[in-house]
Amino acid sequence: MHTKEVKVTFQPHGRTVYVLPGTKVVEAAARGGLPVEAPCGGNGTCGKCRVQFASGAPDPTEAERRAIGDADCNAGWRLACQAAVAEEAVISVPPASRASDVHKILAERQTGPAEDVAPAVRKVHVRLDEPTLDDHVADLERLAAAVGDVTVSLEVLRELPRRLRGGAFTGTAVLTDHRLVDFETGDTTGECYGVAFDIGTTTLVGSLMDLRAGEERAIVSAMNPQVRFGDDVLSRIARSGACPECTDELQGEIASAVGEMIDQLCDEAGVRREHIYEAAFAGNTTMEHLLCGLDVTQLGEVPFVPAHRCGLLVPAERIGLSLHARASAYLLPIIGGFVGGDAVAGMLVTRLGELEGPSLLIDIGTNGEIVLVHDGALRAASTAAGPAFEGARISCGMRAARGAIEKIVLNDDVEYSVIGGGEPAGLCGTALIDLAAELLRAGIMTPEGRLLRGDELPDTLGEPLAARVRAGDDGQPEFVFAEADGRRLALTQRDVRELQLAAGALRAGVGILLADAGLSPGDLQRVLIAGGFGSFVRRSNAQRIGLLPPEVPHERVGFVGNTSLAGAKAVLLSVAARRRAEQLAADATHVQLSQDANFQMAFAEAMIFPKQ
Amino acid sequence: MHTKEVKVTFQPHGRTVYVLPGTKVVEAAARGGLPVEAPCGGNGTCGKCRVQFASGAPDPTEAERRAIGDADCNAGWRLACQAAVAEEAVISVPPASRASDVHKILAERQTGPAEDVAPAVRKVHVRLDEPTLDDHVADLERLAAAVGDVTVSLEVLRELPRRLRGGAFTGTAVLTDHRLVDFETGDTTGECYGVAFDIGTTTLVGSLMDLRAGEERAIVSAMNPQVRFGDDVLSRIARSGACPECTDELQGEIASAVGEMIDQLCDEAGVRREHIYEAAFAGNTTMEHLLCGLDVTQLGEVPFVPAHRCGLLVPAERIGLSLHARASAYLLPIIGGFVGGDAVAGMLVTRLGELEGPSLLIDIGTNGEIVLVHDGALRAASTAAGPAFEGARISCGMRAARGAIEKIVLNDDVEYSVIGGGEPAGLCGTALIDLAAELLRAGIMTPEGRLLRGDELPDTLGEPLAARVRAGDDGQPEFVFAEADGRRLALTQRDVRELQLAAGALRAGVGILLADAGLSPGDLQRVLIAGGFGSFVRRSNAQRIGLLPPEVPHERVGFVGNTSLAGAKAVLLSVAARRRAEQLAADATHVQLSQDANFQMAFAEAMIFPKQ
Repeated sequence: MHTKEVKVTFQPHGRTVYVLPGTKVVEAAARGGLPVEAPCGGNGTCGKCRVQFASGAPDPTEAERRAIGDADCNAGWRLACQAAVAEEAVISVPPASRASDVHKILAERQTGPAEDVAPAVRKVHVRLDEPTLDDHVADLERLAAAVGDVTVSLEVLRELPRRLRGGAFTGTAVLTDHRLVDFETGDTTGECYGVAFDIGTTTLVGSLMDLRAGEERAIVSAMNPQVRFGDDVLSRIARSGACPECTDELQGEIASAVGEMIDQLCDEAGVRREHIYEAAFAGNTTMEHLLCGLDVTQLGEVPFVPAHRCGLLVPAERIGLSLHARASAYLLPIIGGFVGGDAVAGMLVTRLGELEGPSLLIDIGTNGEIVLVHDGALRAASTAAGPAFEGARISCGMRAARGAIEKIVLNDDVEYSVIGGGEPAGLCGTALIDLAAELLRAGIMTPEGRLLRGDELPDTLGEPLAARVRAGDDGQPEFVFAEADGRRLALTQRDVRELQLAAGALRAGVGILLADAGLSPGDLQRVLIAGGFGSFVRRSNAQRIGLLPPEVPHERVGFVGNTSLAGAKAVLLSVAARRRAEQLAADATHVQLSQDANFQMAFAEAMIFPKQ
Repeated sequence: MHTKEVKVTFQPHGRTVYVLPGTKVVEAAARGGLPVEAPCGGNGTCGKCRVQFASGAPDPTEAERRAIGDADCNAGWRLACQAAVAEEAVISVPPASRASDVHKILAERQTGPAEDVAPAVRKVHVRLDEPTLDDHVADLERLAAAVGDVTVSLEVLRELPRRLRGGAFTGTAVLTDHRLVDFETGDTTGECYGVAFDIGTTTLVGSLMDLRAGEERAIVSAMNPQVRFGDDVLSRIARSGACPECTDELQGEIASAVGEMIDQLCDEAGVRREHIYEAAFAGNTTMEHLLCGLDVTQLGEVPFVPAHRCGLLVPAERIGLSLHARASAYLLPIIGGFVGGDAVAGMLVTRLGELEGPSLLIDIGTNGEIVLVHDGALRAASTAAGPAFEGARISCGMRAARGAIEKIVLNDDVEYSVIGGGEPAGLCGTALIDLAAELLRAGIMTPEGRLLRGDELPDTLGEPLAARVRAGDDGQPEFVFAEADGRRLALTQRDVRELQLAAGALRAGVGILLADAGLSPGDLQRVLIAGGFGSFVRRSNAQRIGLLPPEVPHERVGFVGNTSLAGAKAVLLSVAARRRAEQLAADATHVQLSQDANFQMAFAEAMIFPKQ
């Protein structure tokens, strides 16, 4: 049963999201990138999360009347943690209600004009005095007097005198740090772009950024073509060592994919490749190494040593990208053999180290990164979560793209929403979590992850849901959650096992990191969930399947989206952010879970869904 | 009449020179790169220039007996300014007699191990701990812990992990500044070379330097192949603009010539090209621009603006040199359109700015550079002296190479010495100056530069010399100074005119610079003569033909050799020297002689040889 979503528009930002009826405003706002503060944990008692409906207001609850009074309720004010969206609505979120710490920082960074726009690349339109007998300073130094000291490559210097004279000593200097990368005819300061990429094991996401305004102009995602060699990093490492030219082949594949994505970004935004002067990349260690054509064999062997740790700044053409001829590519620094620039990106954009109290960042991807900050110390680990959350290895799984079911609720029957509307084509990570949690709640699945046969189902289960349980092709039970174009979409027993592996690995990793710091889950003041695998995970569902520690109250859990991409954008837009990233990578301690004596036991235990 | 030269060996340095009998020890020592202090100006009165003959001592003069006493005279002590070499001799020069200021600095810099050896390139042999589970720091950072922070190109990083593991984490890091350019197997610290080049309009001189010891391992010279387009910089500038690919063609020609010279240097010293990690070049602005493939058209047009002023550090391969794959080439900074890195090199190695009192550096080449320092201000100018001093445009002219007459004296007949002994093939710049001066002294040539006909010769002239004057092919008189293999070597009237142009241009330039600083020639406390065109110019002869101001006492004139090459060596051996060179180029004022209203008049006047 496909439930129609309703449109919610937030003011004054003008952002629009589509949510299922019944969604709390706080959730809808979060999905719109406008997290709302709820200090009381959503109990409707503190009255801090006031929002005002301009239209589509639901009836106020008793808690709301108590907290804000009848007069305000009549004026459309509601509490975001209480009010549920019932129909199309327009809602104002006053600044006082905006989440004030990490969420706010993130929201500002990820959306709208960034405050911290000071990129390595800058363009300066200059009008220089033409040389005379009394003023015969050299061309480069004449330009430097206007734009500051610069270094220059031979190629640019060979062109510069002609360009200067061709344009009557007027034109646009393009600088990367203090390097003159071009001198363009006329005023081209309006065309100054960069691309930021999250290079995941399974998924690639790219963003075209206007480096002047700090704004995103286009975004695109694609499958990492290397998945044909296997869906985890170990498969890529194995492939890299399979033949002498295999590393170059893997490099060429990802570079081609990135190149095609850049073409799409340029088409979409109407931007020319030559006006892209820098690219920034965040990925796990294996992905970053492969993009650079670095042999990754040693990442598959004890003691898993990467070739480098610091961020790399390389000519984009050397990694096979055709942007501006002298564009650079910056790869975020890495922490260790399995904790890469994506984790650093997460630490960077969430400002994890600045949060008060023990805080955890979980970046859910094929390679799951976990970073714990406690008493100023950053501990980072990675787990081979597998690609389940990105839709791979799940029979009806898919990326969070058009046609993907991204939310599922089991009421009398299955209700779901589809990205972009229309018929469902599969389900993405968030819906997978929803479905597993709902199956647990409904008693259709045991805590051990066994799907019950039709004759084992609880008597209390309604007929519509019970009818969805059937024997799959393998003879084991499966749950049909949707039908589209005559095709049945079902969750199989095998799918559940994949999910258990993925969630269990992350949960075990969290446990080891906490133990290493002498903490228990209840000590966590903040848990930030990152990942580009879906929009927002339902916290209760994530806890129900053990992806998040059940001991952590809901209000301490925040969703920070694709921090890998956000971090790549941040370092593209700010050299200061680049320096912070380098410092973070140097400061963090790499905890190698696979070498921890307790990990295998913790993993085995974490495979069981938590008791409720 | 070819006079046999005698061998003089200086101790404790072991240096050997060949000089004509009658040469003063001070002159012979200077030619051996061991300038001797003569504060009294060579009058034999101060006794400061004591040297001790171990063999071949001439009889002491009266002045010597007075200055040092009979006992010391009997022990072989003489005054270098008085004693003339008569036969093969071995002479000790005590440290106290060595020239103490600029000469000494220069002598030390140009010969033997330099004190200031701190090149950009360094090699470090390392033995690193192999990674373990407890020590899994990245490869590059492991190396950096041993050699200091480094940057790295993708090419090196791609190789590093394999090289480290191939050599059990032992090997030699090659660093240029803080850039890791290679990691070589085994201990290769003994093989660390650079090349320094003086790239002249007419002549190229290259030197292979051991960067560890700071010692020269081989030296080679060749003709600049671009001379086929003409022998002055204006001809190259014209050629550069003659067709779209002409600049590249000129670039390719000089790069090929330099490449061949590097081959010769490597052959001679038994060094592999891959062990040459840096190259340094000094030349005039046009030559440096052309080596870099920079269009020089604008150097031929008012207001003669160069493309850049600062020194350039470029990948050697980008200018077509195959040294180590990641070797750099450094080109000395330039001062203006016609005053280039060669002048900066001269200022650098002579430490011109540190001399007390107004001082002048004259670099005699096809492009003659003049730098005046006065009250801390550096003024630099260039004159189109033409290639006469390098042997070009002179009918019997040649470079100062084997077979060149390099010294001529007219006594009863012509006496000369030939570089390397044997039959003469022509005369080089120093002998040209000698010959002109001697012809003036003997009355065979008028101060206006006219060679007298046989019937005009003074009666006092002896028969052997008079017989050498004859009518040339053009009907004008010429002076036959040698015969070899049945071929007569003669100085023609046209040769004299070329010399007048060359000397006049330099003399006029000196006059303008002095006037600009409010000085007269007599104010000069130091005149340093640089140039690779011959060994040492006889000062009195240079003054007689007006190349040096006659008002300057002999003892204030010093010869500093090829400072362009010396400067290239200095910046190869020392990054501090590189910084000093950049500062000097920035501090110096470029005086454009061609734009000086008085230059043409001064030039016309300077064409006349000075009255004695």
